[in-house]
Amino acid sequence: MTATKFDYTPLLAPGLPPAVARWSGRVKFDFTGGNNDPDRLPLEGLIAAAESVLRREGRKLAIYGVDNGPQGYRPLRDFLAGKLRVDAGIACGADDIVITSGSNHGLDLVNATFLARGDTVIIEEDCYQSVINRLNRIGTRIVGIPLDRDGMRMDALSNALDDLKRSGIRPKYIYTIPTVQNPTATILPLERRHEMLRLARAHGVLIFEDDCYADLTWSGERPPAIFALSEAGGVIHVGSFSKSIAPALRVGYVVAPWEVMSRMLALKTDAGTGALEQMMLAEYCTKHFARHVPELRQGLRAKLETLMDSLREHFGTTVTFDDPKGGIFLWVKLPDHVDTMKLYESALARGVAINPGQQWSVNKAHSRSRLRLCFASPSHEEIHAGIAALAEACRTDFGMSKDGV
Amino acid sequence: MTATKFDYTPLLAPGLPPAVARWSGRVKFDFTGGNNDPDRLPLEGLIAAAESVLRREGRKLAIYGVDNGPQGYRPLRDFLAGKLRVDAGIACGADDIVITSGSNHGLDLVNATFLARGDTVIIEEDCYQSVINRLNRIGTRIVGIPLDRDGMRMDALSNALDDLKRSGIRPKYIYTIPTVQNPTATILPLERRHEMLRLARAHGVLIFEDDCYADLTWSGERPPAIFALSEAGGVIHVGSFSKSIAPALRVGYVVAPWEVMSRMLALKTDAGTGALEQMMLAEYCTKHFARHVPELRQGLRAKLETLMDSLREHFGTTVTFDDPKGGIFLWVKLPDHVDTMKLYESALARGVAINPGQQWSVNKAHSRSRLRLCFASPSHEEIHAGIAALAEACRTDFGMSKDGV
Repeated sequence: MTATKFDYTPLLAPGLPPAVARWSGRVKFDFTGGNNDPDRLPLEGLIAAAESVLRREGRKLAIYGVDNGPQGYRPLRDFLAGKLRVDAGIACGADDIVITSGSNHGLDLVNATFLARGDTVIIEEDCYQSVINRLNRIGTRIVGIPLDRDGMRMDALSNALDDLKRSGIRPKYIYTIPTVQNPTATILPLERRHEMLRLARAHGVLIFEDDCYADLTWSGERPPAIFALSEAGGVIHVGSFSKSIAPALRVGYVVAPWEVMSRMLALKTDAGTGALEQMMLAEYCTKHFARHVPELRQGLRAKLETLMDSLREHFGTTVTFDDPKGGIFLWVKLPDHVDTMKLYESALARGVAINPGQQWSVNKAHSRSRLRLCFASPSHEEIHAGIAALAEACRTDFGMSKDGV
Repeated sequence: MTATKFDYTPLLAPGLPPAVARWSGRVKFDFTGGNNDPDRLPLEGLIAAAESVLRREGRKLAIYGVDNGPQGYRPLRDFLAGKLRVDAGIACGADDIVITSGSNHGLDLVNATFLARGDTVIIEEDCYQSVINRLNRIGTRIVGIPLDRDGMRMDALSNALDDLKRSGIRPKYIYTIPTVQNPTATILPLERRHEMLRLARAHGVLIFEDDCYADLTWSGERPPAIFALSEAGGVIHVGSFSKSIAPALRVGYVVAPWEVMSRMLALKTDAGTGALEQMMLAEYCTKHFARHVPELRQGLRAKLETLMDSLREHFGTTVTFDDPKGGIFLWVKLPDHVDTMKLYESALARGVAINPGQQWSVNKAHSRSRLRLCFASPSHEEIHAGIAALAEACRTDFGMSKDGV
């Protein structure tokens, strides 16, 4: 008897996203995603940390959460409390922090705590793709606020909040990446942080501060976190080790007051984030984080220089960008007639992967001829060769020349 | 100026579960959860594996998913494909497997792919608490099927499917833990597996097979997985390293055909499971899994003997249970008048934590005087002393004696 194949289709939930294609490996010149520099990974330190912490307390892996409760490995939360105080000006203790499986998991927990279909949220109009996708999947209405060279524009935020108020809509939160914004790499100055707090307060809106890139300002200097500036609360802060140590280690965190934390923990049904990664990070970071990060920044800055030089060499005056304030991304503007969704296909055929601007923005017209380039993971040689190949795609398929459109 | 505290309450999503209480540490005698035996954790092997794999390819941690695509670390999927073939009779390749952050994450992905509010699902009436909680949170209608000493009763399943059909309801799936069921530790015999497949097929219902405990049968023998017995598909298989290696490492997996896999991956927005844990497990398990698991089983069986002896000593004839077929749990029946939700409080006051039956069952009457005891994590001495303290609680607060109610 030959069995007829089971038909799964009638059983699928309604409204699923389209099926994915099979993974076919990375391309030769990969400027996408948030990958980091393999050469700057502190491998020896991580190996030593893993062995040390496993020898000391590895047997606790037999207990969920290594017997540290639902908020994560205590020494890692202690490290974070200290780091956040020194770096971001945040006064918090280990009990105000929950370790998550990457900052995306933090986004999910905060979203599940506050958002329902039909809710309105405010974001920077050029914004982290995963945030936009998550909000669309939940069914929220997204209001995008334009940025300038100093991040989110407070005049536009003020107008948007007033407009919403007139329509009887109270947005749930203002999501912002104030320190090395993704994708624009801007830093919101102190006075704008105070202004955002004032506006959020006046409208009874939460601020959701994503500080994932904040360790990677070139100078090491940064304004205090918005969380740190609020006397009255109303700010939730999320961060990650993906950019400062390694993205394949899925470890992030959320800082929130207990009123919010106790609701998020009720929704946190994952039985904890991988304990070994938490343990290794705590062991490594407590000793070496402060020394490692400046070395990483230096390496990233050198790669950015290579990228900017390559762009100038191969694109001449047809490409514009601002010098990023830190991080791993360059947000690039091509001539208006170049649709980077189409360039994506054309570049891919030449072994170059880019992130088209439309996927990192809710303003489709503004982002149509923009793209995001990650310079952290390709080598200097790959950056040179990849940008040459990208320029070739632009010339051949979009009729671009070095000196004009 | 003193700022008035921000009020989060009006912003919370509707229908949230109640806030959790602050974690106050584990009790002295902890028989709850799925914790394992710290003494049987293969610590030296794991340390060596972590160092070895990090030295060889640790720099790839700088790349999301260590450049192995969205389904997880390839060597771990290769190990699993081999293990599943040998142990469970499943013919699958690495492309049919996705690594998840524990089996709970697998539950979430499968549920998100198939379930919407109002859907009906079938489960064993005594069932894993996290499954029941997840289904309730989604808003599904749960139909519980009673178990006997051979697991889910096929006569009852057949009747339930017929009843649902008469009401025009097609359930989305039959969730089952066929091999060392949680909490009853029963094993579904081969003929029942075939019968379940026949019934599921006749009604166009998916089978969702959870094999998390299947490595831990006392003999090492087990029937083929239901997934392996289906010629036509229609089965999704989930498993975990939590019970065979360590629960604090959050690594599980789902085996599914591409039609389902490609929809699940579209919903998988976590940017991957912790790569270090996957790498360490692949390195360790490829060499040592087959030798480690029998040693673990032996240790668990010895603890179970201690638990059963202690129960007989302190409870006499007032307690009944079947000898589990494997695993880490004993499902215990107390006299009818004992409400184990109340016993939970009473025991806790004596430093003993138990899982009350009602949290592990959708049949409240049947489970009211039952409890689940995990014997894997407490030491032999703690099992002795903890059961003595539990018996004391039963005597003092519920008037139980050794020889009767």
